[in-house]
Amino acid sequence: MFQLHPVLAAETIYLGDFPLCALLMSKDANYPWFFLVPRCEDIEEIYQLDQGQRAALMQESCVLAQVLQRIFEADKLNVAALGNVVPQLHLHHIVRHHHDPAWPAPIWGAVAPREYEENALQGRLDLVLSALAQEQFCIPGEA
Amino acid sequence: MFQLHPVLAAETIYLGDFPLCALLMSKDANYPWFFLVPRCEDIEEIYQLDQGQRAALMQESCVLAQVLQRIFEADKLNVAALGNVVPQLHLHHIVRHHHDPAWPAPIWGAVAPREYEENALQGRLDLVLSALAQEQFCIPGEA
Repeated sequence: MFQLHPVLAAETIYLGDFPLCALLMSKDANYPWFFLVPRCEDIEEIYQLDQGQRAALMQESCVLAQVLQRIFEADKLNVAALGNVVPQLHLHHIVRHHHDPAWPAPIWGAVAPREYEENALQGRLDLVLSALAQEQFCIPGEA
Repeated sequence: MFQLHPVLAAETIYLGDFPLCALLMSKDANYPWFFLVPRCEDIEEIYQLDQGQRAALMQESCVLAQVLQRIFEADKLNVAALGNVVPQLHLHHIVRHHHDPAWPAPIWGAVAPREYEENALQGRLDLVLSALAQEQFCIPGEA
């Protein structure tokens, strides 16, 4: 049975599910920063997914990327499967702006995480969830 | 017409072509570090690829990842599309080991690049190319 890794659970907010992946948002307010986590057991690398799961991951990643690009007017998207610390497969989707605190470096290790103010957090969640409402995305409690 | 970005051309060695992507190896000897670059014009984000190209990218990435995992006995693979400095879409495939100089951090900005010794370079290229020979991979000059 799929269980979210406790580090991911602690550092993110759960937004809902695509057909394959859970969608999470980082609690770090420095960047609009999201994760797709395939709801599969014991998967650490993309190639371990079967053909159908690979296709779903690609599709969900592209839907999410296009939505993020549009609503945050991204200068660049960073999409990455690293997993050195948290081996459970999770695909980072980070919206990058020329004015963000790490630009143009990758975000990891660049600056300390920053907490959201409550209004900013709710506003960001609402923005993303309403933009995803027309995709194959299921918000918890609204299924 | 597709042209490789000059920074990628300068910092890598061209190994050959998959049906969609050129395969490059980084000149940084710190890690077995490879790039897939779709041979398409003006593409910066994965979602800009059409459905067939997305499927090919997924397939080629998984073939490459499995080969790298096997021949280098990777502890983890890092697969990433960043592109903040070089916007031309390129997918990093980095073999990570617990004993590598950046572990467990992401490699970017961790340590200065290190040059290959000539024998080590040739040995690595031979290893990868012979492992890829049974895949849909075309080595230049052998097509």
